[in-house]
Amino acid sequence: MSSTRPLRSLSIHNINPHVKAAKYAVRGELAIKSEEYRSKLKKGDPPTPPENPLPFDTVISANIGNPQQLDQKPITFFRQVLALLEYPALLNNEEALKSSFGYKQDAIDRARRLLKEVQSVGAYSQSAGAPGIRQSVANFIERRDGFPSNKDDIYLSAGASSGVNTLLHIICGRPETGVLVPIPQYPLYTATLSILNARCVPYYLDESQSWSTELSIIKDAYDKAVSEGTDVRAIVVINPGNPTGASLSEKDVEDTIKFAAEKNLVIMADEVYQTNVFVGQFHSFKGALRRMQQREPGRYDTVELASLNSVSKGMVGECGHRAGYFELVGFDQEVQAEIYKFISIMLCPPVIGQCLLDLVVDPPKPGDPSFELYDEEYNGVRNGLKERAWALYRAFKEMEGVEVGEPQGSMYLFPTITVSEKAVQAAKEANRTPDEFYCLRLLDATGICVVPGSGFGQKPGTLHLRTTFLAPGTEWVGRWTKFHKEFMDKYR
Amino acid sequence: MSSTRPLRSLSIHNINPHVKAAKYAVRGELAIKSEEYRSKLKKGDPPTPPENPLPFDTVISANIGNPQQLDQKPITFFRQVLALLEYPALLNNEEALKSSFGYKQDAIDRARRLLKEVQSVGAYSQSAGAPGIRQSVANFIERRDGFPSNKDDIYLSAGASSGVNTLLHIICGRPETGVLVPIPQYPLYTATLSILNARCVPYYLDESQSWSTELSIIKDAYDKAVSEGTDVRAIVVINPGNPTGASLSEKDVEDTIKFAAEKNLVIMADEVYQTNVFVGQFHSFKGALRRMQQREPGRYDTVELASLNSVSKGMVGECGHRAGYFELVGFDQEVQAEIYKFISIMLCPPVIGQCLLDLVVDPPKPGDPSFELYDEEYNGVRNGLKERAWALYRAFKEMEGVEVGEPQGSMYLFPTITVSEKAVQAAKEANRTPDEFYCLRLLDATGICVVPGSGFGQKPGTLHLRTTFLAPGTEWVGRWTKFHKEFMDKYR
Repeated sequence: MSSTRPLRSLSIHNINPHVKAAKYAVRGELAIKSEEYRSKLKKGDPPTPPENPLPFDTVISANIGNPQQLDQKPITFFRQVLALLEYPALLNNEEALKSSFGYKQDAIDRARRLLKEVQSVGAYSQSAGAPGIRQSVANFIERRDGFPSNKDDIYLSAGASSGVNTLLHIICGRPETGVLVPIPQYPLYTATLSILNARCVPYYLDESQSWSTELSIIKDAYDKAVSEGTDVRAIVVINPGNPTGASLSEKDVEDTIKFAAEKNLVIMADEVYQTNVFVGQFHSFKGALRRMQQREPGRYDTVELASLNSVSKGMVGECGHRAGYFELVGFDQEVQAEIYKFISIMLCPPVIGQCLLDLVVDPPKPGDPSFELYDEEYNGVRNGLKERAWALYRAFKEMEGVEVGEPQGSMYLFPTITVSEKAVQAAKEANRTPDEFYCLRLLDATGICVVPGSGFGQKPGTLHLRTTFLAPGTEWVGRWTKFHKEFMDKYR
Repeated sequence: MSSTRPLRSLSIHNINPHVKAAKYAVRGELAIKSEEYRSKLKKGDPPTPPENPLPFDTVISANIGNPQQLDQKPITFFRQVLALLEYPALLNNEEALKSSFGYKQDAIDRARRLLKEVQSVGAYSQSAGAPGIRQSVANFIERRDGFPSNKDDIYLSAGASSGVNTLLHIICGRPETGVLVPIPQYPLYTATLSILNARCVPYYLDESQSWSTELSIIKDAYDKAVSEGTDVRAIVVINPGNPTGASLSEKDVEDTIKFAAEKNLVIMADEVYQTNVFVGQFHSFKGALRRMQQREPGRYDTVELASLNSVSKGMVGECGHRAGYFELVGFDQEVQAEIYKFISIMLCPPVIGQCLLDLVVDPPKPGDPSFELYDEEYNGVRNGLKERAWALYRAFKEMEGVEVGEPQGSMYLFPTITVSEKAVQAAKEANRTPDEFYCLRLLDATGICVVPGSGFGQKPGTLHLRTTFLAPGTEWVGRWTKFHKEFMDKYR
């Protein structure tokens, strides 16, 4: 063995430094610790008196938007069709189809159509996804925006995350390449830019204006980056916002498009929360761009827009199926060919997930046999999310030093917390930022796992945390309220 | 708009050059053309006389190991359980469970156990996969090798491709980093190294020795790379081989491990074809390593091995579900934490695919209610693959200028073809390599899509092609034989 080498080939000192530099707090230290707690609690079944009993009996994973881990039920129509696709022998069995739990005719028809499209959910599809399913997505976009969409510009992906990964891989090729990213942001963006050894160009969202974009701030961030030698090539917009929940006004969307056109930037519109809107309205970038192109023919023809969507969010919440898509508008054909090659290397997105996407973008319509139940379940989820958001909001309003706007959408609240100087000192002694310190104490005391604002980015001197409002009931909110009071008292 | 910039932000000239440099012929030009043919044939249904009729009526996708696209039926037990997982209401419905198509009790029990494990297939799991499923994989490895395996060293992935992507991301951080890759190889390796801007260090397999590894060739390749300033960090071994089908002897496996230990290289053992073996026997790297460690305590303690497996291959062929895993042996804990963080950014592998993996590594056993059918289906696939391999082999033996060894395993044959000087000239005029030229002509004349040897790498001056032997029947083989004769006659 060579003496100039460490004992192993790989150590923390010689692996890819760009991977090492990446940060992803949503599933970081706190999430790992919460899983350890969960596993500890599980082992207590059958119950034996543990040596160090935990001061809680359930772990609440409010760190990630994972509705079906937290009691949200899947939509029956979707799962009926998926069951038929997994086990197509059911389709040839009258008895199975007609028994009391009853697949309605539209579920059977859809399964037959999808099977014809993919042949088997166990077969690879085309790299960008089955053509018929891409057509369903194009039809959905067309209905949503009122403008044509072409299936050849639709790329199915294993969740929106995989789509973001693809797009950033194409855009970022040099260390000077920069991408404008909102702060706070979903850390997928900064983590992927780290791995690609490209530059994140942060622009702050305006908390005082319900976390909307503020064009002058974006311009300043761009100018500063350019002056530092960054080749800014794209702008990320998350609308509705994660972690903020805010829906942008049509004017804000238009301003962003104008700016991107002026500076020749690709727009990456992360629109995975497009149906999770309580306040205001969702305005798609594609729709806004097409309207601008109609109003001023020729002016915005070369705008390049990639808009992303997912089955993980909305009222669907099918995270585990890893399905999503992105649509490209205005992209060069040679560039699209490179995107196709890139995704081909991983062969194709999960095919059962592709089929689920087909169902999500083309659900039962009024008059269809499955519509009534679908509609009831869909609205049940929507109303439940809104109720939970408001219950949590009201609890935060009662907490000392916590400020938060009314729930606007997405699956999160992102309150500001103000803690005492004594708490800041205690955090420093524990080698933590104050928001990390608070979230760690919260987890240890209550089993509630949330993510410190530093995981998303926040203005220096401010502290936040992101929590989902997915967990059912109010008992856990009570735990939090009690903890908060004790924390504030302890460090008063 | 800035005048120094092109009209769009992204063009073929300014996207990530490392993505541009990547090559992936398995789904390249030929595959895309074959899909266009398929779509043309589909539109002819109902049949109308096309203007330019194609000289074939089906496309045979022999370019990729995709069994269920080519008529292979999924294993019933697997799909029954997956259907129950997608639609768990079935589990509470006596009538559904007992109707004539009949879920056996072991399918019902397994579905209940897996649902308890994942809660819902629509929920994100832990980043490395559900703990209970990782435990099933560890149990499988333990039974296979006769040595312990730890679930905390098992990482589930979206197919083996995703695992390779993860491992190469960790290993490759600088342009000088090199990885030894067999030639011919599955082009995932070279493509990913291109994207990572790292160096492929090719070592040739020995065609005259049934494509086995030859240590002196590996050593020469290593020495040459080191002398050129490459920091060689890992060696890839594909066993059984893709595209060659060859199973390495235990001695070849041991020699590779000794070499890796001496040079301090991570071993990446791509073992996705471990059950597709007709000739010889599969020897896992993990088993061989553990035996060496027993024989010579202390000597091989620091060997780092990552071995990969998949549900896409074997007798399962569930490519579309995108599921697989890798096991790490001897890796540093801090490095494993970085791997965990890296995979967390994409959240988790598809959960229904994870459940399928559980079934594949722990199928019905003798005595279980579903065993008989499982066993019959499994052996049916195995025998079918062998028959098809031999039918194609015999056809190749009859073809002028084609040389190929007896089928050994995997899903491929990789014959050498020798064409006339006139054909080489015709290829040059068409701006193609001769193997590309042959494969293109084959596709245009017969609808059979295969991949030129240049897509996998081959010794200079030799020509090969890779074809799967998955397509049923012999009619397509007849098409090929006829084409080959005409091709040879035309360029004689």
